[in-house]
Amino acid sequence: MDRLRLVKIGGTLLEREDGLGAFLDAFAGLRGRRILVHGGGAQASRIGRKLGVEPVMKEGRRITDPATLDVVTMVYAGLNAKRIVAALQARGCNAVSLSGPDGNLLSARRRPVGEIDFGFVGDVERNGVNAELLAALLNEGLVPVLNAITHDRSGTLLNTNADTIAATVAGAMSDLFDVELTFVLDRPGVLADPGRDESVLPYLTPSQVDNLKQSGAIGGGMIPKIDNAVTALSNGVAAVRICGAEGLGDPNSGTKILNDR
Amino acid sequence: MDRLRLVKIGGTLLEREDGLGAFLDAFAGLRGRRILVHGGGAQASRIGRKLGVEPVMKEGRRITDPATLDVVTMVYAGLNAKRIVAALQARGCNAVSLSGPDGNLLSARRRPVGEIDFGFVGDVERNGVNAELLAALLNEGLVPVLNAITHDRSGTLLNTNADTIAATVAGAMSDLFDVELTFVLDRPGVLADPGRDESVLPYLTPSQVDNLKQSGAIGGGMIPKIDNAVTALSNGVAAVRICGAEGLGDPNSGTKILNDR
Repeated sequence: MDRLRLVKIGGTLLEREDGLGAFLDAFAGLRGRRILVHGGGAQASRIGRKLGVEPVMKEGRRITDPATLDVVTMVYAGLNAKRIVAALQARGCNAVSLSGPDGNLLSARRRPVGEIDFGFVGDVERNGVNAELLAALLNEGLVPVLNAITHDRSGTLLNTNADTIAATVAGAMSDLFDVELTFVLDRPGVLADPGRDESVLPYLTPSQVDNLKQSGAIGGGMIPKIDNAVTALSNGVAAVRICGAEGLGDPNSGTKILNDR
Repeated sequence: MDRLRLVKIGGTLLEREDGLGAFLDAFAGLRGRRILVHGGGAQASRIGRKLGVEPVMKEGRRITDPATLDVVTMVYAGLNAKRIVAALQARGCNAVSLSGPDGNLLSARRRPVGEIDFGFVGDVERNGVNAELLAALLNEGLVPVLNAITHDRSGTLLNTNADTIAATVAGAMSDLFDVELTFVLDRPGVLADPGRDESVLPYLTPSQVDNLKQSGAIGGGMIPKIDNAVTALSNGVAAVRICGAEGLGDPNSGTKILNDR
């Protein structure tokens, strides 16, 4: 099977002009089939506040009322998506940004109301990914740039976690390609000591991840990323890695997620 | 040549829930190859004001400073585009929304500073339209939904008049298809008496348009639309029409723009 690289860029990198530029240089410099997934939560919170829409987070997810849905649709699918695509085009990379409703690329299910009502939050599954359309675009030489806005196929937009989208799309594309999934952060990988960039863990297996979570060595925003990385591996993705922007082109940079032996 | 319908929806229709629903029903009900072009100036002005970005218009165009560029990118390419696509998908129409930078679909030239500095305003020409990509998408059964955000190929987004985009894309696609261009307004066509919907002019030729402009019978926002309609006809578009949403499916509804004999 042909190789496909799927790269997820973290929101903190999107916030820093210099960090974003370095990432886009590295991404545009890659060769062959590739897909970029981006979020933009920090910008959405900032622009939302200006519009009088205060962000409310629960369990790491944004409670998405109708006004918040408008904000994230504007920021993810509008501002961030088109800025990234214009910047990639200027670097000779034939990018095309698409959200879930475009060509029914990503359909999601609205999360049922349990103890928390997340509002217009969607969950994606493998069968909600239009892998055929993505493959057709890749075969045309296009570089799809995906964001966190999906739809329910009944006319409603949904706000979906971009890390989960990356892991789910990577899994679905594994039927057609040898997929390498890379989460790019503003640090060089998973760190044994969060204060020292030199302490990158070169490998992690699911059981090691469990141990590190229990010991508290990894926590906060890193946990959903690592969980998605482990899920992707179990979904048939050939290789999963967490690294910094400068390590994107070097397959040995950062932290590889490997199966337990 | 195969037939291609290119439909431009006016901003005032986008503002009215009922009007938009009726239009989307009619557009989804069309058969065959088609492209939709939309704007959204009124929403951009409203959301911009909430963000402290006061709209400034000169010669009917929006002065586009960096903050205004962000607003129109969010509203046109984000909110309006994705809402329209989700609504069309729910109606069984396989829409995909794209802005100028996506796949380098529409490249524009930043308008030179003359007596007025329009800021990040772009002008499109026929050779800035990626007709091959649009044809490839149409041949996949997709329905492209285009908005007014273009790029300069050097990483800068530009705000471009949506009526001009419709006329220019229609002209460029005329090399490959028999193109029918329809401008859909919140009135049933060009009216001889602006107060009476029954006074639709069934035909207009360029010389009649000149006479009506001089007599003041057509004015205001209708003039750039009619000018774009006349330009499209001279650019090789097979048929150009101005009508209301309810007349979209009826080729005899509204005002046809015809060449002088």
